[in-house]
Amino acid sequence: MKNVKCCKCVKCDKEYEACANITTCECGGILDVIYDYDYIKTIFNKEVLKNREDQTMWRYRELLPIEADTIPKGLRVGNSPIYKTDKIAKMLNIKELYIKDDGINPTSSLKDRASAMAVTKAIEAGYDTIACSSTGNAASSLAGNAAAAGLKTYIFVPSRAPKGKVAQLLMFGSNLTSVLGSYEETFDLSKKAIEKYGWYNRNAAINPYLSEGKKTVALEICEQLQFEAPDFVCVSVGDGCTIAGVYKGFYDMYNVGLIEKIPRLISVQAEGCCPINTAVLSNKDWTPQEENTYADSIAVGVPRNADKAIKAIKDSNGIAVNVTDDEIRSAQRFLAKECGVFGEPAGVTATAGLIKLCNKNAIPHDATVVSIVTGNGLKDIESAIENCNEPVRCKNSLPEFEAAMKEHNIIVK
Amino acid sequence: MKNVKCCKCVKCDKEYEACANITTCECGGILDVIYDYDYIKTIFNKEVLKNREDQTMWRYRELLPIEADTIPKGLRVGNSPIYKTDKIAKMLNIKELYIKDDGINPTSSLKDRASAMAVTKAIEAGYDTIACSSTGNAASSLAGNAAAAGLKTYIFVPSRAPKGKVAQLLMFGSNLTSVLGSYEETFDLSKKAIEKYGWYNRNAAINPYLSEGKKTVALEICEQLQFEAPDFVCVSVGDGCTIAGVYKGFYDMYNVGLIEKIPRLISVQAEGCCPINTAVLSNKDWTPQEENTYADSIAVGVPRNADKAIKAIKDSNGIAVNVTDDEIRSAQRFLAKECGVFGEPAGVTATAGLIKLCNKNAIPHDATVVSIVTGNGLKDIESAIENCNEPVRCKNSLPEFEAAMKEHNIIVK
Repeated sequence: MKNVKCCKCVKCDKEYEACANITTCECGGILDVIYDYDYIKTIFNKEVLKNREDQTMWRYRELLPIEADTIPKGLRVGNSPIYKTDKIAKMLNIKELYIKDDGINPTSSLKDRASAMAVTKAIEAGYDTIACSSTGNAASSLAGNAAAAGLKTYIFVPSRAPKGKVAQLLMFGSNLTSVLGSYEETFDLSKKAIEKYGWYNRNAAINPYLSEGKKTVALEICEQLQFEAPDFVCVSVGDGCTIAGVYKGFYDMYNVGLIEKIPRLISVQAEGCCPINTAVLSNKDWTPQEENTYADSIAVGVPRNADKAIKAIKDSNGIAVNVTDDEIRSAQRFLAKECGVFGEPAGVTATAGLIKLCNKNAIPHDATVVSIVTGNGLKDIESAIENCNEPVRCKNSLPEFEAAMKEHNIIVK
Repeated sequence: MKNVKCCKCVKCDKEYEACANITTCECGGILDVIYDYDYIKTIFNKEVLKNREDQTMWRYRELLPIEADTIPKGLRVGNSPIYKTDKIAKMLNIKELYIKDDGINPTSSLKDRASAMAVTKAIEAGYDTIACSSTGNAASSLAGNAAAAGLKTYIFVPSRAPKGKVAQLLMFGSNLTSVLGSYEETFDLSKKAIEKYGWYNRNAAINPYLSEGKKTVALEICEQLQFEAPDFVCVSVGDGCTIAGVYKGFYDMYNVGLIEKIPRLISVQAEGCCPINTAVLSNKDWTPQEENTYADSIAVGVPRNADKAIKAIKDSNGIAVNVTDDEIRSAQRFLAKECGVFGEPAGVTATAGLIKLCNKNAIPHDATVVSIVTGNGLKDIESAIENCNEPVRCKNSLPEFEAAMKEHNIIVK
């Protein structure tokens, strides 16, 4: 890879050759992929992008850690829509708001970006089997992308994973294990099995390429906003890998000279599980927490990418804010109703945080903000239905219809 | 609209001016939008398309019934992926197979194409409220697109509509009525309410513009296959509006000279509810049937677009084939496992039909085939889970994991 210099430990700075199946540093630290921006600038610019036919995440391949001759397999990932919503911007009293709907990816979450990368790297490294543990979305996206690419999967989810994600995993033909325990225990079992059987490891905790896949959401935001970086970008945070990836995408774009500033990241966690934000707000090391939130995708008490995430928030002069489950529920209804984007609970947590900050006047009124929705609401239908009023029920009769509407206090007109 | 000549009754040929809120002919027949292909050829060709930045369904606006200065609101619809799957083509012993995954649209079904059109026409006609009856997907797509465009909705679904679709409707803030009865009764109630309250009517049975929205899936297929029309296109059929739209798209492309033939359509219905195919196979008029299939989106016993659909199948020298619910279940697992596309039951019915025909040697081995998946499997999680084996369950222990896998007859390696 001519565009990649090496992989470097975020803890001890030790450098490693960027081989396709590299994991963590010998000190236990997470690795970061280091690019040769001087070289990349000679082959990558706005004109190159403009003329590129590839509409997927791979259109940014000069900034991605894959071999020059690799043809990625798997599903069509990326190019998710960004919606400008003047209505909500006005309600929140900010200048511009964009909702980036990443729930529209092939398996309906942002995690497709990481899984497509994992599948590509696994094939580069010559593996035919790939494994991971996940709260759900990493798993279902891996299963889908691996199925499309013809790889076998072993996947470990905590037994609390919502039915929608389990349905995807079973359908995609994964060898699925539902672990009777927390995400931490699920991760631990996957680690032991991967070590014993030698499968390619798609755990975001260990694989430095995954956040490189996720960063494509930030690369897209830059391009979709005509390379005018927004002032703030809101991200729901669980394991920390996504916000680290978002930062990396903007960092890359800044370093190749395509944007003039790196946006301030808004890290939003659930009050019931916020180890990363607690560390940022207290300026101390992170410590494990319980997983007390219904937003399952970000219920991660022992975040494996905490170091990268905390660095990303601090380096971007970011903001950390926690929200209650009720604030998440409210944001879910609000986003769906006001702009037609139905996100899963963890997917709308970012927007819940933005609403909270705007209500506190903590965001300047002239700010341009992007809020990322990381997963589709169909992933967790039961919690969505609990979050809404019942539908009106009646037989095929206009008077019955009108009476039922009245009972629900809906004025028909 | 300079590109549209008129709306013409498919039954009695009477012509009407194509105003934005036109419904059916006075004889009761459905209307078809008639284009001025000679004019369109002067402004639309491959070069125009190649240079067009718009990646949504509106990139084909010269072939769509909207005013030249209309800026469509709503969600970003269209540009769904088409996957070439050599593996399945080989299994089915045909030359080429493409899976067009329309479940990736913003509310996760092909119906977004029709709803985006309905919302656009409603706004053109000056309405602020829009209504429909639906088995689910038309409804949820209307609710989502209307929410994005700032329109109010009244929506009627039969009480059997799956939870996923109901969750979407409630989230998008629709005034939702769950009708205790069949789709036919649901439709009837919506008709009475729409007549009384004067809302814009998004019923595919009545609104000639909806199949014009749906046809964009065929326009995309042409462009994605470099204007080499496939030999066959498989479509799941319920109301008949979708297959009529698919035909219209190819008909348009043929008439503006961008493809050299119209593909033969394969109309696939569920054995438990197949009034359109019964009419085609018996060469008689269609008659109502019961709605005995779990594939809810195509369980339409009284299809409102039967005339257009039957004409489309016949005019394309098409094939009608019915499949059992078990064949649909099998196709759902097959598509997910072999190419990573997880469709809802009605969404994969087209592929079930193709598999059946190939097993009977009824498709030439040198054929190029496209099979359209019309909706995402997450729309109906419960039926998907019933359709799969249980996951393996164990605690965080490698020996327990291995024992549980063995019990499920999975060889871990």
